[in-house]
Amino acid sequence: MKKVVVIGGGTGNFTVLSGLKNYNLDLSAIVSMADDGGSTGILRDELGVLPPGDVRQCLVALSDSSRLMRGLMNYRFENGGLGGHSFGNLLLSALEKVTGSFEKAVEEAGRILSIKGKVIPVTTNPVRLKMILSNSKVLEGEKEVHLSTEIHRGYKSIYLEPFPEVNKRAIDEIMNADAVILGPGGMYTSLIPNLLVDGISKSLRDTQAKKIFIVNLINKKGQTPKFKVGDHLREIQRYIGKDIFDYVLVNNGKPAKELLAAYSEEGDPVENDLHDPRIIHADLVSNALKEVQKGDTLQRNLIRHDQEKLASELMKIVAHL
Amino acid sequence: MKKVVVIGGGTGNFTVLSGLKNYNLDLSAIVSMADDGGSTGILRDELGVLPPGDVRQCLVALSDSSRLMRGLMNYRFENGGLGGHSFGNLLLSALEKVTGSFEKAVEEAGRILSIKGKVIPVTTNPVRLKMILSNSKVLEGEKEVHLSTEIHRGYKSIYLEPFPEVNKRAIDEIMNADAVILGPGGMYTSLIPNLLVDGISKSLRDTQAKKIFIVNLINKKGQTPKFKVGDHLREIQRYIGKDIFDYVLVNNGKPAKELLAAYSEEGDPVENDLHDPRIIHADLVSNALKEVQKGDTLQRNLIRHDQEKLASELMKIVAHL
Repeated sequence: MKKVVVIGGGTGNFTVLSGLKNYNLDLSAIVSMADDGGSTGILRDELGVLPPGDVRQCLVALSDSSRLMRGLMNYRFENGGLGGHSFGNLLLSALEKVTGSFEKAVEEAGRILSIKGKVIPVTTNPVRLKMILSNSKVLEGEKEVHLSTEIHRGYKSIYLEPFPEVNKRAIDEIMNADAVILGPGGMYTSLIPNLLVDGISKSLRDTQAKKIFIVNLINKKGQTPKFKVGDHLREIQRYIGKDIFDYVLVNNGKPAKELLAAYSEEGDPVENDLHDPRIIHADLVSNALKEVQKGDTLQRNLIRHDQEKLASELMKIVAHL
Repeated sequence: MKKVVVIGGGTGNFTVLSGLKNYNLDLSAIVSMADDGGSTGILRDELGVLPPGDVRQCLVALSDSSRLMRGLMNYRFENGGLGGHSFGNLLLSALEKVTGSFEKAVEEAGRILSIKGKVIPVTTNPVRLKMILSNSKVLEGEKEVHLSTEIHRGYKSIYLEPFPEVNKRAIDEIMNADAVILGPGGMYTSLIPNLLVDGISKSLRDTQAKKIFIVNLINKKGQTPKFKVGDHLREIQRYIGKDIFDYVLVNNGKPAKELLAAYSEEGDPVENDLHDPRIIHADLVSNALKEVQKGDTLQRNLIRHDQEKLASELMKIVAHL
C-alpha cells in the first residue's frame, strides 16, 4: 500500500484527504497548530487547550463512520455561551482535558470516528503565529494574519512563538512516505506555519518521497495578489530552502460565473506562468455551490478544489510510484 | 432473561443501573424530563433542547465502553462560556439538533457508549415542573422545587406544564416487565415528576411486574423532614393511586460518622416505622467518601446507596421471579 502524507491545515487538507480516503492508501495528515480564530481561538483562550479546529477537519475527512457522526462533528451550536463552537472541537478539547494530552485526544477521537489513516499535529507546543510587516506592524496570531490585507506590501518575518519542538512522528511519516502533498491552503496561515516547525523543511528536502505541490485556485487579496504559479512556488521554497517539488498541480478549469463574480472582491484566480514538465494541468475546480455553514464565525472559501477530481489526478501520480 | 425497569432520574437511577448492569438482565431506565438546573437548565434555555442531564447519567451507568469514554461523558468544562457544562450533555444536545429528535439522540448516544439496555425519556414534550405551596407561592421549575425548604409546610399541587404526552415506549416497558423499581431519588424532583405523566401511574397499577420501592437514605430538609418509611410510601402512593409495592427496600446500615456530621444540616436519616412483611432491611449505604466534582453547578448527595449492595439485594428478589 502506498504511503501518502498530506501537509497543511484547514479546508485544503480536508478536501485532499476526503478525496484520497476512497483509494487504498496508507494516509497521514500533518496539521498546522497555529490556528487561533473562531471557535478554536475561544477554546484556546478560555480552556488553555491546543487548537482543535484543523485536526477536527482532518478527522472528519478520514472518518469511516456514519454521515450522522460526521455531521455531528461539524455541527456548530448557534446560541448562548456555546454559540459558534463546533461539537468536534468540544470533543477534542474535552478529551485533551480528560486524557491530559492532545495527541491522546486526537487518537481517541480517531477511534470514535473510525478514521482510516493518521492525524498528526506538527507540534504539541502551544504556538502562536506572528508576522512582522515591512511597516513594522506586528500581526499577533493566525487570525490577524488571515485577516490582514497588507502582507503583499512586504513583511520582515513570520515565526511561531514560542519556538516549537517538532512532533517526531511527523518527521517519521515524511521520511517513510512514497508521496508528500503540500497544499492547497492559505500561504501564510496553513502552509508556511507547518514549515516553520524545526525539522519539517529538512525532512522534506531529505525524504525519498515524491513531492507534490497543489497550487491554490484563488489568490488571497492583500496577501498573494496577482501571484502566478511561479510566485507561489518561490514563496513556499524560501521556507523549504530548495526547489523540491516533482509535480505541481495547477487548475485549468473555470469556476462557475456566479462564484467568480462573488469572488472578485476576495481575490484573483491564480494563473500559470511556467513552462515546466513538472506542471500538471487539470480541471480541479468544484462546481458545487456550498452554503456557508450557519453559526460559523469565520468566512470559508466558496471556490474550492473538487475532492474527486483532485484525488483522481493525484492517484495518476501515486499509482505509478 | 428477566426484564427490569428502573424509574427515576438523577443519581438514584445512576446507582441502581450501575449496580444491576453487572447482572444478566434486560434493563430499561425510564427517566424524568423535568430537570432544568445547572448545565441542563442552561442548555434548555439557550438552545431549546430537552433536558439531557438525567439521561446522560443513565447512559453512563449502562455504558459498556471504556473508563475513558465514561469519564469523558461526565467531564465538566471549568471555564468561559462552556463553564459548568458536562460533555455528555453537549453530546446529547448536539445530537438532538443534528437528528432533529431527542429520542434519536438518546439512541445514537447509546450506540456511541455501547450501552447495555435502554434509556427512555418518560415524555418528549418540553415540560416544566410547577408546584403551588399552601401559602400560594409558586415554585417554577425543578430547580426551584429542589432548592425550596418550605414544601413540608404543605403544598396545594404539583404538576407538569404543558401537560405532557407519555412516551408509549415507557408504558410498554412497564407492562412487559418482570420487575419495576422506583427510587431512590428526590420525592418531588425525580420520583413524582415521572408519575405526573399521564399513563405511568395506571401502567404501574396494571402491570403484572413485581413493584419494588427503594426508600431514600436521608430526608431532604424542608421537603420530607422526619418522614418515616410509611410517610414516604404514603406520599408516593397518592400519585400512583394505590398501594402497589410488593417489596420495600430500607437501609439499616450506618453512614460514616464524618458524613452524618456533614449532613446534619441537610436532613435526617429516614427511619422505619412499619412492621410489614414487604419491608426488606439491609445495609445499603456506601462507605466511599466521594468528592464533589469540580465545576459542577449543583450540589450532589454525599450519603449514597452503595451500588453493589443495592444490586445484590435487588437480585435476591429478581432472581426468584
